[in-house]
Amino acid sequence: MPTSISKLSDLLSEKIRDTNQVIEENLNSKETPIIGDIASHLINSGGKRIRPLLTLTVSKLFDYNGNKDTFLAAAIEYIHSATLLHDDVIDRSEKRRGLKTANIIWTNKHSVLVGDFLFSRAFQLMVRTQSLKIMKTLSDASAIISQGEILQVGIEKKLDASKEDYLKVIKGKTSALFSAACQAGAEITEARKYHIDALREYGDCIGTSFQLIDDLLDYSGNENKMGKNKGNDFFEKKITLPVIHAYEKSSESEKKFIKKIFQKPTPNHSDLSYFLEILEKRKSLFFTKNQASIWTERSVTALQIIENSEIKALMIGLAEEILDRAS
Amino acid sequence: MPTSISKLSDLLSEKIRDTNQVIEENLNSKETPIIGDIASHLINSGGKRIRPLLTLTVSKLFDYNGNKDTFLAAAIEYIHSATLLHDDVIDRSEKRRGLKTANIIWTNKHSVLVGDFLFSRAFQLMVRTQSLKIMKTLSDASAIISQGEILQVGIEKKLDASKEDYLKVIKGKTSALFSAACQAGAEITEARKYHIDALREYGDCIGTSFQLIDDLLDYSGNENKMGKNKGNDFFEKKITLPVIHAYEKSSESEKKFIKKIFQKPTPNHSDLSYFLEILEKRKSLFFTKNQASIWTERSVTALQIIENSEIKALMIGLAEEILDRAS
Repeated sequence: MPTSISKLSDLLSEKIRDTNQVIEENLNSKETPIIGDIASHLINSGGKRIRPLLTLTVSKLFDYNGNKDTFLAAAIEYIHSATLLHDDVIDRSEKRRGLKTANIIWTNKHSVLVGDFLFSRAFQLMVRTQSLKIMKTLSDASAIISQGEILQVGIEKKLDASKEDYLKVIKGKTSALFSAACQAGAEITEARKYHIDALREYGDCIGTSFQLIDDLLDYSGNENKMGKNKGNDFFEKKITLPVIHAYEKSSESEKKFIKKIFQKPTPNHSDLSYFLEILEKRKSLFFTKNQASIWTERSVTALQIIENSEIKALMIGLAEEILDRAS
Repeated sequence: MPTSISKLSDLLSEKIRDTNQVIEENLNSKETPIIGDIASHLINSGGKRIRPLLTLTVSKLFDYNGNKDTFLAAAIEYIHSATLLHDDVIDRSEKRRGLKTANIIWTNKHSVLVGDFLFSRAFQLMVRTQSLKIMKTLSDASAIISQGEILQVGIEKKLDASKEDYLKVIKGKTSALFSAACQAGAEITEARKYHIDALREYGDCIGTSFQLIDDLLDYSGNENKMGKNKGNDFFEKKITLPVIHAYEKSSESEKKFIKKIFQKPTPNHSDLSYFLEILEKRKSLFFTKNQASIWTERSVTALQIIENSEIKALMIGLAEEILDRAS
C-alpha cells in the first residue's frame, strides 16, 4: 500500500520537480564550482527532503497557486543542509546517509564555508518570496536552531540531564525547522492567523516526534535504512532521550558502569552491547517511542481546526508514518 | 589633530550608542547565556566597528532621520563577527585583537554555532528594517563573502596564484561587506539609484584597500597596534598580495626557497626573517601599498557624484586614513 508520504509526493510531483530545479540551479556558481560539488554531494545523497515536502504540502492544503512555495521549500532544504554540514564538522562525523561526509572527502574548512554559503543562499531565495513575514519566520527559526545546538553542547556528557532539558534541545535543533517549514508554507498562502498557528504547532510536534524516533533508531534501527552507522550517537557519546531515561532508571552499579563508558574517549562495541542490554532492561526505547507517539497525537490534534480534505488526511498519515519508522 | 574617523564617531555618537545597545541587547538569550559570553568576548574586544560606522555615516550623508540604520549597523557587525568566529576555526587562530580566540577559550563547536547564531540574528535585525531591498543587499553580500572565502581555500599553497585571482578573493571576503554596509546605509534612506550605486562602489573600493593594507601590516605592522601576532598570515602560510608579488619577482633560487618554506608544516622565525628580506628586495610591500592607494583613489572618485558636505569630506578622509594605517 502506498504511504501517505509517497501519495503526497505523487500529488505534488510537479512542485517537487520545480523545487528540485531551484535547489540545483542555485548551487551553481561559476567562480566556485567546488561549492556545487560539495553541496550536491550532501543534497543529492538520498535525503528524503521531508521539510520541503511539508512546505509544499501546506501550501497545497490552502490551495496556493503561485510559484513562491518552491523558492521557500528550496530555502528550507538549504538551511537544513547547512546545519548538517556544520553538524558533521562539530561531531567529527565520517558517514551520513551511507556516504562519506563532506568534511572527510574535502575538509572542515569546506564544510563550514559551504554551510555558510547555503545559509546565505537560503536567505537570497527567501527574498524572492517578497514576504517579510516569511523572512521573519525563517530567520527566527534559524536563531532557535543554533540555540538548540548550543544547548546540546551544554548537556554533553551530562548523563543526569533532565528530560525537560533534552526536550529544549530538540525543540531547537529539529522541531524549529519542521515548524517553520509548515508555518511559512501557510504564510505564503495568506492563510488566516489561527490556521497559521495550527500549522506551526503541527510542524513543531511532528518535528519533535521525528527527532525522538531518530534517537531511538540509532539504537535499534537497520543500518542500511538509516545510512548512518548504528550506535552512531552512542560512539559520539550523545546524550539523547534513551540515554537519559536508561541512566535515570538504572541501579547504582549500572549507573557507575554507564558513567565509565561515557567517560571513555572511544567506547567500543562490547560497551554498546552492554548498554543495549540496559536499554532493554529499563525499557528506555519503549519509553522513547511512547513519548514520540504523544507528540504525534498532538500533531494530529493541531490539525482539528482545519477543514477535512485529502491533503489533511495525508498530513495525518505522514505524522503517523514518522512514528512508524520505529516499528 | 583628530582623524576623520574620530570626527565621524563624535558626530554620530548618539547613533553609535544606540547601535551598541542593539548589539548588546540581541546577544542576550535567557536559555543560552553562553552565546552572550562568547559573542561579547569577540564583539567587545576592541574592534573598531568600522563597518557599522560606515552604515551610520552613509545614512547621515543622506539626512536619514529614522532609527532603522541602527538595526542595520548592528546586523552588519553581527555578520562580520560571525565570519570572524568561523575564520578563526578554519585558520586554527589562537589570538585576535590581542586576546585568545573563542575557539581556544571555548571550543570549535562553540565558535561554529555562535557564528551561525549571529548570522541568524543579523537576519532577524534586518527583518526589523522592513526593507526587502536591504535583505537582498545583505543576503547577496553574505553569499559573496562565503564564495570569497572558498576561493581563498582554493589558492591555498598556490604561490603562483595570479594577482587577479587574489583580487577575486578579497573582493569577496572583505570588500563585499564594506560595500553592502554603504549600499544598505543608502538604501534605507530611499536615496536615488545613482547615489546608491556610488556608495556601493565607494564601499567596495575602501574594503579592497583595507584588506590590502591588512595584508601588508601583517608583515610590517606594530604588534600591539594590530592585536594579532606579526607574521600571522606567514605562519598560516596564507597567500596574500605581498606573497604573490614577491614570489613572482623572485629569482629561481629564491623561488625554490620560498616554496620550501611554504611547504613546511610550520615555518619558523628565521624563515620569516628570510622572507622579510625578499619582500624588501622585491619591494612587495611597496607594491601592495601602491595597489591599495589605487583603490583609495577610486573610492574618492566614486563620491564625486555626491554633493559636497561635511560628511562627504570626512568619508574621503576615512578612505585616506584606511590607507595611512600603513605609514
